[in-house]
Parts: sequence; C-alpha cells; structure tokens
Amino acid sequence: MSAVSFQLLAQDGSTAARRGQLATAHGDVQTPAFMPVGTVATVKGVDVPDVQATGAEIILGNTYHLALRPGTDILEEFGGLHEFMGWPGPILTDSGGFQIFSLAKIVKITDEGAKFRSHIDGALLDLTPERAVQIQASLGSDIAMVLDHVIRLPNTPAGIREAVERTILWAGRAREAHRQYAKPHQAQFGIVQGGLDPVVRIECAERLQEFGFDGYAIGGLSVGETPEQMYFILRETASVLPEHRPRYLMGVGQPWDLLEAISQGVDMFDCVLPTRNGRNALAYTDAGPVRLRNKCHERDQQPLDAECPCPACQHSRGYLRHLFMADEMLGPILLTVHNLTYYQRLMREARSAIEVGDFQAFHQSKLATWNLQ
Amino acid sequence: MSAVSFQLLAQDGSTAARRGQLATAHGDVQTPAFMPVGTVATVKGVDVPDVQATGAEIILGNTYHLALRPGTDILEEFGGLHEFMGWPGPILTDSGGFQIFSLAKIVKITDEGAKFRSHIDGALLDLTPERAVQIQASLGSDIAMVLDHVIRLPNTPAGIREAVERTILWAGRAREAHRQYAKPHQAQFGIVQGGLDPVVRIECAERLQEFGFDGYAIGGLSVGETPEQMYFILRETASVLPEHRPRYLMGVGQPWDLLEAISQGVDMFDCVLPTRNGRNALAYTDAGPVRLRNKCHERDQQPLDAECPCPACQHSRGYLRHLFMADEMLGPILLTVHNLTYYQRLMREARSAIEVGDFQAFHQSKLATWNLQ
Repeated sequence: MSAVSFQLLAQDGSTAARRGQLATAHGDVQTPAFMPVGTVATVKGVDVPDVQATGAEIILGNTYHLALRPGTDILEEFGGLHEFMGWPGPILTDSGGFQIFSLAKIVKITDEGAKFRSHIDGALLDLTPERAVQIQASLGSDIAMVLDHVIRLPNTPAGIREAVERTILWAGRAREAHRQYAKPHQAQFGIVQGGLDPVVRIECAERLQEFGFDGYAIGGLSVGETPEQMYFILRETASVLPEHRPRYLMGVGQPWDLLEAISQGVDMFDCVLPTRNGRNALAYTDAGPVRLRNKCHERDQQPLDAECPCPACQHSRGYLRHLFMADEMLGPILLTVHNLTYYQRLMREARSAIEVGDFQAFHQSKLATWNLQ
Repeated sequence: MSAVSFQLLAQDGSTAARRGQLATAHGDVQTPAFMPVGTVATVKGVDVPDVQATGAEIILGNTYHLALRPGTDILEEFGGLHEFMGWPGPILTDSGGFQIFSLAKIVKITDEGAKFRSHIDGALLDLTPERAVQIQASLGSDIAMVLDHVIRLPNTPAGIREAVERTILWAGRAREAHRQYAKPHQAQFGIVQGGLDPVVRIECAERLQEFGFDGYAIGGLSVGETPEQMYFILRETASVLPEHRPRYLMGVGQPWDLLEAISQGVDMFDCVLPTRNGRNALAYTDAGPVRLRNKCHERDQQPLDAECPCPACQHSRGYLRHLFMADEMLGPILLTVHNLTYYQRLMREARSAIEVGDFQAFHQSKLATWNLQ
C-alpha cells in the first residue's frame, strides 16, 4: 500500500494531459501541481501564509541544503521539516543528488555512493542511497526521492549508460532502505535518467517500475539541452510511466515548458525560475516575461497584471521598478510572490482546461498570448 | 488654521505624559505614536498591509532619499508619495537636513542653504529651506519638517550658536515658503536645535514658536551623547513647547528612550532601530533585546514572545536563528515585523497607562522587565 494515493479525476481528450489528486498525510494536492522551492526550510523571502496565499499546496525542500543547515539532528528534534518551518501542507524532498552534482565539489562516485565536499565549509561528506533515505526520514517529508546519478548533457553513450545503471542500482537499494527507515506517512518516488537517449530512458523507466515506486520522476533534464530535445525525451519517457502513479518532472521550468509537459501527461513540477527570476526583477505575465528594471516601466502607473490578486499587483510597475533600482528587498519579495502566484494560476487554468477536455486549445492560446520569439 | 489638528485626550497624573489624537487628511494617529521609517518609499522588507498589521498608523519618509530616487518629478507624476508607495495613512517627511549632515559629502553650508554631493552618484546638489518645502510639497506628506542645521555633539558653544541661529533663520523662511508652496493638507513642524545647552535649547524653542508651527520637533539628539545628557535636554526642552501642539522627538530611539520621552510629554517618535536591528537579528522583547544569532537559540522551540501576534512569533526561536545563519531574507523580514509590532504594542500600552493616569508605574515596570544593565 502506498503512503500517498493518487486518483485520476479527468483525462484531456485532445492530449495526454491528466487531472488528478494526490492525497497525503498533510493534505491533498490537485494536479497538475507546481511546487515552489523551499531550499533551506524557506521559500526565499516569503513566509508560510504568503506561500499558501499564492495557491501552492505542496512545496519542495532540498535534502542536501537541509542536511548541512540546520542539520538532521536539529530537524529531528523539532519533529521534522513541517514543524521546523511551520508549513502544514505536503512536502516533497529531493535526494540531494542534483545538488551534489551541481553545487558540491565531487571527490569520488562509486556504486557505493558519492563522496563530496560541502559548498559551505568544504567538509568531506558522503551520501549513499540508504543515507539519502535516512535523512529524508528525519525530514519527515511526504514524498522522498531516491538518490540518482545526475550527469551533464550532452554526454557519451558510455557515460549515460554508467549513470543509468548506477541510478537503477541505487533505486533498488533506496527502495529497500525506504521499507526499513521511512516514516509511515512517507512515499518514495523513483527517478528516470538516460540523458537524451530515448531508448535508454524507456529502459530505465521500465526497470524502475519493477521496484514499485509510489510515483516516478523524470530527472536530468533542463541541464543544457534545447527545448526540442527536452520535449522529445519527455514525450518518449512520460508515455511509458504507469498511468496510475503520479509523474513528476524535476527542476523544469518555464511556464511554456510546464504546459508542454502537462500535455505529455506530467502531473508535478518544481523549479527555481519563478522565485529566482522574481529576485532578479523578471516577472511572468500573460503577455510574456517583463523585465522590471527596464526604463520603460519608470513612469508606468499600471500594475503588472490587473487580474492578478497578488500583493505586487496592488502596486504600479513604476513602484516595483523603483524598489529594484533602489536595491530595496521589497522588490524581490513582491516579485517572488507575483511569480509564484502566476505559476499557481497557470496550473489552476490548466486543470480547468483538462477537466473540460480542452487542454490543447488552452495550450495554444497561452503560447499565443506569451508571444515568445 | 492648522492642516492637522491635535487634541489632548488625557494627561497622566504621575508624569508629564500625554495621550492625544492627531487628525490628518489621511486619517487619525493616536499618540504617543511611533512612526516606522520608510526611507525610500518602503519600510525595508515589509509591504504596506504588513506595516499596517503591526499597528502603525503613520510612517516617515526621507526627503533626501526620495528626492534622489525616484525623484520629485516621478513622485509628482504618480500623485505623491502616498499613491506611489500605496500607503493610505498619514506620512511625515523629514526635510533632508539630517541625511545631508550624515550621509552626503558636504561641500558648503551658508545662510542660503547647503551644497553637497549625493551619496549615490556624487552629483552636486543643493538644498535650501525653500527647496525643502517644495520637495515635500511634491511628496504630499501630511507633515513636512523644516530644514535645520544639524551638528555633531559634543560641539563648541560657537558651533552650537551658529547652527541654532541658522536653524531659526531657515525656519522663518521655511514657514514663509510653506504658505506659498505647501499642499492644503500639509502641516509643518519646526525643529528645536541647541546641542546639549539647555539655555540655547529653550531659547530656540521659544523663538521658533513665534512662527506658529503646527507642531514642534526636538532634533539633534541621539547623535553620540549619553542617555543622561539626552534625557536632561529632553526634559528642559519639552517643558517649554506649547501644550496644544504635537511634540516629536526625532530619530530616537530604544524602547526605554521612548518611555522616558513620553514621561516628559513627547507625543511622536521615529527611529531606524526596530527595523535596522531586526535586519541584524536583534529582537526586542519584554525580557530585553534578544540576539538571535546566539548559539543558545539553536534548539529553542519557543517563540520570541508567546503573547506577540506577529508572524515571526508563529515560528520558533530556533527557526528564526536558522534563517539568519543560512543568510535567508525571511530572517530580516520576520524580525523587522516583530520589532515594529513590539514598538507599536509598547505605544499602545503606554497610551493605556496614560489614560488611567498610571504611566510612572508602567514605566518602572517596563524598565524592570527589560532588565537593562
């Protein structure tokens, strides 16, 4: 029996898009769902009630960062990540794999695990599939991810093969460790790797299913490939994942990437773009991204989006620009909230479109309004 | 007729403390009142509804900063500072004098005005009493301050005398300019200078009253003198200010300074301490200031103050400390809101104590609970 249950509520007629509901011990999540990134027990610059007000039902925590700060002993003492940060809803935690490969200085990777140095103080640490399960048990997240071997793209066939074999080996051990160490309410998702090779992706997806995970993620994308390459792999991979388990595309992406993935049947997303871009004065709107530092906004008394209910849109573009030009922290705060609100509104619209079987038209209309080059 | 009206609602029996109400075109202010500092059209890190939720009824804007960024032309185009930043309540603006003397590089001060270089780009600028009135008319604040000559303390008798004579000269010209340029809803306050010399302070206070200002500020304190020196000058000066006009102590101070000043009959305050200290992990509580970076808070699951209704106190001290140790902006945001809430709660308690004629006992009990060394 799975610690989370996933129910398909509707299927789009025109695409592979699905409308579902994920039930966890900390509440339900309507899918397709976007998870704001709360790296180190906070969505940067936004307190819990304000994250909830954006419409977010589930957030992501980064195991690598949390294990370094505040550390698992503190998190356990506080009763887990939910209690520590005061987020009452569902939490998904990654395994730390992606951060080890992107932030830390890798010392050595073997079938046993990864040895690396902390990006904070250079301390020598290691992470194994079992340890990643144990750390996430301390965090008490609702969904724990397996440790996978992430590689840079493009890569050689041999490099991709090695990473996939290790990912599958680690997935089996993680599944075993999960049975032993996980909290009763914790689900575990496997992660499909395989670079840009559709055959390897499909093989990986099929072999992972033998372990019977509660959900399946597509990892190792949005790491340098073109959108076309990503969309191709997405299509090939999503279609071989089990229908009645949630599908999660990791670390992706732009609003248009999300809609493409939803049309391929993906249910869950996380990405730093809305928050990171918000801190850098880039706002998402239905007319496409707006760079608020641009001089053209200096005297603009209109809000970013008159229809948006977020606190940033209670202000003018001119005021928001002023905050960034004066290096005032309220600028990053407000645009973070705006972008998260935009992503959640987009997911809500997508869910409605799927419910009425009209996702393809919705997708096309959004691409037109965004007016992307 | 004054653009603002000030009504004394109660006098404390045990001290010179007063309970009043200041009525402005943008709403009423209960006094004694603390004004959060919104330097450059934002209380740093806190959006308007969250500033209101702390209990603040009036905020302060800094004319010097606003004139540099976004500039008076933009502010006028937006309809003034209230509209630009979205603060619907009363606003008091300083004259820019203090910032010129503390931030800018002074080129020359004459009876005509001050020549200085912008601390942002080094541009050569000047400010006269008339120009300070005009800029504040563009800002449209409810209370405008006159340009005064601020000096460092300690200073020579000749230095103090020169600054006071210039402050009085400028006050007269500012009063004249106010009649000519100010918005109909704008009041104007004079500023008493005179260093640490009580005779000069009293003379300055009395000569300023000949101009018939709508309120009177005590300036040039908290610039390096001891608390005892400040309290002495405060006592000497407040007692010669007109009873039926609001009295404003500029740029002061710690919670205990506020209570001392209230006991001497001061009605209004502004200070960067609650916001600046909040950004630096220092929290005000009834048990005295708490430095949240201290290791002792690492595993503390209690809130800063169980009685405090602010968002920070929905979290544990351990979590707040973690935010600062991880350099997360939510730490400064939450402590800023907490400290502002603390100051507003203190003012509310002070007002209640005055209403029942018990301010002295309240003052003593607060000093005891703060446990200051």
